[in-house]
Amino acid sequence: MPDCIFCQIIKGQLPSAKIYEDERVISFLDINPVNPGHTLVIPKAHYKTIFELPEEELIACMKVAQKIAGAVFKGTNAAGLNFIQNNLRPAGQHVDHIHFHLIPRFPQDNFYTSWPGKPYPQGELEKLAKKIIGCF
Amino acid sequence: MPDCIFCQIIKGQLPSAKIYEDERVISFLDINPVNPGHTLVIPKAHYKTIFELPEEELIACMKVAQKIAGAVFKGTNAAGLNFIQNNLRPAGQHVDHIHFHLIPRFPQDNFYTSWPGKPYPQGELEKLAKKIIGCF
Repeated sequence: MPDCIFCQIIKGQLPSAKIYEDERVISFLDINPVNPGHTLVIPKAHYKTIFELPEEELIACMKVAQKIAGAVFKGTNAAGLNFIQNNLRPAGQHVDHIHFHLIPRFPQDNFYTSWPGKPYPQGELEKLAKKIIGCF
Repeated sequence: MPDCIFCQIIKGQLPSAKIYEDERVISFLDINPVNPGHTLVIPKAHYKTIFELPEEELIACMKVAQKIAGAVFKGTNAAGLNFIQNNLRPAGQHVDHIHFHLIPRFPQDNFYTSWPGKPYPQGELEKLAKKIIGCF
């Protein structure tokens, strides 16, 4: 995809601090990290979201991401690690080439440690579960 | 793991709004969701983090998670979706049984759409990349 900055990184047209590369997957440091060591893992083939990513590409990315997660954790002396993949703008996806974030975490680093949970009204949990199951 | 609430859900000792189950993986709605339809995908075997999860368990979870991501997205009429896995307390892991979050997203839902990125000082990007590569 000519306009995609990640495709340009893959082709070597844009620089990156590369962590790993094989025929299918590439990994490099995010240049605007939540914390130092924040790493991206992406398939070389251009797909936008997890919804259309072929299963074999997903598996290739995950095998690599798991190994890199351990290296990021050790290499940054982290206290935790988030593995995050955002789909579409309302979910915080800013580059339209699917990417998996590995974010090393440190105490009081000002990223999240809890979320704003909202319990379901009575009966709504079961109703929504049925609706989702109906969409398989 | 007797004290683990997710192991108790797997054994049917605690209730859940189940979305999917096979011999290796189970999925159910988070009872304290970021948004309605927030779904968890977990391996039935008890592992704490992505660092020690066997590769075949990871792959089994991911295959299921991808299918469920599509169903959650459709079933909730979402505008986006986050796929998140938190490791250890400083990263927001509150149950010590590895779990993958699928969070449907809606405009102005007050969850994140961007992150506090901090660019690297000159030279630090390459230095840290080398350190991480050294930890493979």
